[in-house]
Amino acid sequence: MGRLPLFQNSIVVNILAVLRWSGLLLPMAACVGTLCAVFLWALDHVTDYRFAHPGLLWFLPVAGVVVGLAYHWFGRSAEGGNNLIVDQIHEPGGGVPLRMAPLVLIATVVSHLFGASVGREGTAVQIGGSIASGFARLFRLDDNGVRIILMAGIAAGFGAVFGTPVAGAVFAMEVLSIGCIDYRALVPVAAASILADMVCHSWGIHHVPYRIGFAGYPDLSGQIFHTDPVLLLKVGVASVCFGLTSLLFAESVHRLSPVFRTLCPIAWLRPAIGGVLTIALVFIAGSRDYLGLGVVAATPDGASILNFFHPGDYTWSWLWKLVFTVAALSTGFKGGEVTPLFFIGAGLGHTLSTFLGVPTDLLAAVGFVAVFAGAANTPLACTFMGVELFGATDVIYIATGCFIAYLCSGHSGIYLSQRIGVPKA
Amino acid sequence: MGRLPLFQNSIVVNILAVLRWSGLLLPMAACVGTLCAVFLWALDHVTDYRFAHPGLLWFLPVAGVVVGLAYHWFGRSAEGGNNLIVDQIHEPGGGVPLRMAPLVLIATVVSHLFGASVGREGTAVQIGGSIASGFARLFRLDDNGVRIILMAGIAAGFGAVFGTPVAGAVFAMEVLSIGCIDYRALVPVAAASILADMVCHSWGIHHVPYRIGFAGYPDLSGQIFHTDPVLLLKVGVASVCFGLTSLLFAESVHRLSPVFRTLCPIAWLRPAIGGVLTIALVFIAGSRDYLGLGVVAATPDGASILNFFHPGDYTWSWLWKLVFTVAALSTGFKGGEVTPLFFIGAGLGHTLSTFLGVPTDLLAAVGFVAVFAGAANTPLACTFMGVELFGATDVIYIATGCFIAYLCSGHSGIYLSQRIGVPKA
Repeated sequence: MGRLPLFQNSIVVNILAVLRWSGLLLPMAACVGTLCAVFLWALDHVTDYRFAHPGLLWFLPVAGVVVGLAYHWFGRSAEGGNNLIVDQIHEPGGGVPLRMAPLVLIATVVSHLFGASVGREGTAVQIGGSIASGFARLFRLDDNGVRIILMAGIAAGFGAVFGTPVAGAVFAMEVLSIGCIDYRALVPVAAASILADMVCHSWGIHHVPYRIGFAGYPDLSGQIFHTDPVLLLKVGVASVCFGLTSLLFAESVHRLSPVFRTLCPIAWLRPAIGGVLTIALVFIAGSRDYLGLGVVAATPDGASILNFFHPGDYTWSWLWKLVFTVAALSTGFKGGEVTPLFFIGAGLGHTLSTFLGVPTDLLAAVGFVAVFAGAANTPLACTFMGVELFGATDVIYIATGCFIAYLCSGHSGIYLSQRIGVPKA
Repeated sequence: MGRLPLFQNSIVVNILAVLRWSGLLLPMAACVGTLCAVFLWALDHVTDYRFAHPGLLWFLPVAGVVVGLAYHWFGRSAEGGNNLIVDQIHEPGGGVPLRMAPLVLIATVVSHLFGASVGREGTAVQIGGSIASGFARLFRLDDNGVRIILMAGIAAGFGAVFGTPVAGAVFAMEVLSIGCIDYRALVPVAAASILADMVCHSWGIHHVPYRIGFAGYPDLSGQIFHTDPVLLLKVGVASVCFGLTSLLFAESVHRLSPVFRTLCPIAWLRPAIGGVLTIALVFIAGSRDYLGLGVVAATPDGASILNFFHPGDYTWSWLWKLVFTVAALSTGFKGGEVTPLFFIGAGLGHTLSTFLGVPTDLLAAVGFVAVFAGAANTPLACTFMGVELFGATDVIYIATGCFIAYLCSGHSGIYLSQRIGVPKA
């Protein structure tokens, strides 16, 4: 007698919970997806505008100061960025301010208009976290609810901005702590990520498609088999380099930031240094290819993520992009580090492919996700991202790249508020 | 001064650790891959032989007793099966006996020859765990080393037997506890899984290829976009059914096993009941399609995993397979539950696809991995398995299926030694 009513009761409770969470997550994800669409649309336009007006670069120091002043006057806790969101998931407290979304969106677009070498994932994650926190306050969620909706916000932003919803969902769970993942928010993060990506797409936003021509070597019987031992070993060696590059990137940002803080204690003035440094770097490198996102270049043969999938001479592009990005981020430009990490990884993969005799498109794809996996300590999310961007054929190599880069990148990572759940070795 | 020698020292330590682990993992994975090749080869042959000699079914009760007696005389702790391995990872103690590998291999092949409805993953995992534990004793590993090599053994067995190395690696980490995953063994499990799959393949073993014709609907602009909201909702509804089916399966085995133990306290005699039940079920169902693995059927139109990807009348096949498999497993037949779960999931997906108006191949594929994800509480491993078997195009639907089925399947699962890390809700 006791079981059936209990079972029915539990069904009613579950249906109510699903309805309540749907009522929260659907509008939240729709907002985040829409803002990400606006952001990507603006990013495309300012990038094209910058390509057409290279002189804008001269105003980068001033643009940096304007962004700095905006945060100085209006920012308050929004300055905390991604780290504030991760902190609020670990220990819900003051929440994430709603002002973070418009501030970071405008600041990133301005940074890109004048050519700062920054990314877009930080912006998307902050839009997601800020909107999600607004919903949490509106619906007076308890601590557990706040945690789940903030993770869903991160997933929505990440999934929509890169067009990789499964990676977005796993990223939101994986980024909180190094070395472990907790499934409490599994379905909410996936729902938010998929919905935000769908809404972003429905606004007419299309993501750059990547194609890997390499489809594996035939085995003795003539069939294509996914694992070639020699190729796997070469990808493994390259992945150690990818992991060390992640470490180099994260350490450079962490060590240079305090140097710039000492050099210029006024926070809003600091991006001016980054702007001047970027202008100087353009002249030293003799190229503007390392400004902005870097997904496509201003010239057909320029160094860009897309071009790294084809033959060409881009030997040191990865290192230049690293230097440009460290200069921008450690002096306070907004936008995030992930797209530059894609550039660094794909570029390094391109370069190593020549030395190691590996198909260029394959190693560019592996580097694309592996350097990010090492820097963010998110190997499973990055493997899913590889699958979503490059297809399933080379999943063995993508997983190898992400797992080894994760192991070799140390414990510092790009997110300072990420906790160490399970140490790497 | 202090940093460089420390850095060099740490490089030497790391290289030594890599060499030491390679020396352990490579031969272990090669052994496991070879034994899995033998196992799969034997399975193919006994299945063909059984198709040609249907009368073998009459001897199933006797075969069950022979298997029971083999475990009674020689089995000792090997009787613990998968649960013993998972227990030894949580608390390394007596280890996993080497005799487990040959015993389970022969017992499973005998079970399949006479038509018991069992799987093959239990066998593969036990071969992996048993060989890995042998290496752990040989090299006198400490508790931490034992944990890692046992997980690598599970990964090797799983990766090789299904030809899905990334899923094998994630499965070995994910199966230990519900609701969380720990990356300590990330690279060792991936290395073992990939290598074992490669060795198994190099012995000439080929896995059945699955093809999903469905490639998504075009959006308003004519482009194929991965998420169709109506389709996603339908897949979500089906996934609740998949999760409840996982729950039904696990609960049935857990509740019927003690009933059969009470009915027949002599363990080695108990499979005879399962054999008699199976014979009776064949006559009630009027079909032999639910015997054995079920990947292919004896007749072209028979109920089988492969046929569930095409139109046909298989409405209650999933339920019959569930009953056949519960009868075999709860009376002590060996082999595991995963391939039957694939059958149940793909069959239920086939049936639901007609009611919901979803492409049959898509929902069969989602059910294939989702019912297993719910029953084993391994949503990420099963999503990777879906990608490795069915490609990346439908990863959104595969992830949705696995995540929702995981959420709806409760905390019992098919592995009793699995711990609850983070409760589901």
